[in-house]
Amino acid sequence: MTNQHCSTSGIAGCSFSIHPMSDNFIEVITTALKNVDTSKVWMETDDVTTTVRGRLPHVFDVTKAIFIHAARTGEHVAFEGTYSLGCPGDSAGDVYLAEDDVTVNHVQVKDIKQSVAAKFSLYPLGGGNYMDVIMEQIEAMKEHVDVSHAHYATRLDGESIKIFDGLEQVFNATVDGGSSHTVMTVSVSANSPSHKGGDKDE
Amino acid sequence: MTNQHCSTSGIAGCSFSIHPMSDNFIEVITTALKNVDTSKVWMETDDVTTTVRGRLPHVFDVTKAIFIHAARTGEHVAFEGTYSLGCPGDSAGDVYLAEDDVTVNHVQVKDIKQSVAAKFSLYPLGGGNYMDVIMEQIEAMKEHVDVSHAHYATRLDGESIKIFDGLEQVFNATVDGGSSHTVMTVSVSANSPSHKGGDKDE
Repeated sequence: MTNQHCSTSGIAGCSFSIHPMSDNFIEVITTALKNVDTSKVWMETDDVTTTVRGRLPHVFDVTKAIFIHAARTGEHVAFEGTYSLGCPGDSAGDVYLAEDDVTVNHVQVKDIKQSVAAKFSLYPLGGGNYMDVIMEQIEAMKEHVDVSHAHYATRLDGESIKIFDGLEQVFNATVDGGSSHTVMTVSVSANSPSHKGGDKDE
Repeated sequence: MTNQHCSTSGIAGCSFSIHPMSDNFIEVITTALKNVDTSKVWMETDDVTTTVRGRLPHVFDVTKAIFIHAARTGEHVAFEGTYSLGCPGDSAGDVYLAEDDVTVNHVQVKDIKQSVAAKFSLYPLGGGNYMDVIMEQIEAMKEHVDVSHAHYATRLDGESIKIFDGLEQVFNATVDGGSSHTVMTVSVSANSPSHKGGDKDE
C-alpha cells in the first residue's frame, strides 16, 4: 500500500497524548516510550501532545505500541490521537521516512491482551470515492471487534491490537479510495473502573 | 448568531474527556461535574467520552466550565474534545435545545485564572467561504493569547477562559462563513509539570 495520494511525499503523522489517570503518570509514559522502537519515525513531545511523523505503517506501529505498553501497567490510561495524511498546509520538515514498511514494534506487542473501548471518527477532507470503502472496512472490522454507533463517532470494543490494526486498515482504505487529505481522530480507554472494556484478561 | 447552516435544527455537540493525571481522577471529575450547571444541555457520560448536545453557546459554556473546575484543583488535567455542528449523519435525538442563548456557567468561571497550553484543529467539511474568516478570527485571538504553529494544529498559550472563548468565536465564524458541517478538535493541558502554561497564577 503506497501513499500516492499524499501531497507531501507520503508523510503521515499523528498528534497524540497518553493520559494515565494516576499519580505515576510520568513513569507510565516514560516507561512506555522506553519500550518502543522509534527509529523509523520522527517523534517530538511537547507539553500538550506528542507528534510522530513518517510512513503510515510506522506511525501506526509506534502509536499502537506506546499505548499498549502504557495500558499494560494496569493503570487507567487514555489515548487521544489525530492521524493525518496529505494536509495541504503540511511542511516537508520534521519527518523521518524509513526505507521500508517493515514494522519494528508489532511483533513485541501483538500477543499482549488488553481489552479496550474506543471511539473513532474519520474525516476525508480531500474528496474521492471513499464512503463505500469505509463502510466495507467497518463491516470487516465487525469480525474482530464489537462495532456500534456513538454520537460523532463509531464505537469499538475489543482487543487493542485488533482495534488499532482495524483503524489502520480503515485509514488506508480511505486514502486508497481517493481522499487526498485524510484525518482520523481516535479515543481509546483502557482499565477504566467504569467500563466493560476495562478487563485485563491476560 | 444563529446556526442556520445546520442540517439538524441547530444541534451542536461536543464529545470530550477530562483526564486528570492523578489517583484522585474520579473525585476531580465528579467534583467538576457537580459544580457545573448542565440544565441547558443534554449530557451523557460513558466509559470513553462525555457527550454534550444542545445549542452551541451552551455546549461551549458547559465544556469550558467543566474543564476550568477540574483544572483549578491544581492537578495536571487534560481536556480532549471534538466540537461538531451539522453532521449529516446526526440524529435529532439525545438533545436539549434551550430556549435562549443566555449561558449559565460563564459568570462563575470567568474570573478564574488558569494558564493553559492548547492545540486546536478546524475541519470545515461542508464547504463555504470560511478560510479568510478563520484567519481573521485567529488574528483576533492574538490580542488575547499566544498563537503559534504546530503540526496538524494551531497552538494557543494563555488564560483558559480566553482560549475557550476564542475557540467558540472561531467555530461560530466558520459556521457563519458557510460551512454546513463543522468539526473542531481541541486538546488543552493545565498544570503540566513540564509546560510553561502550567503556572496557576491565582
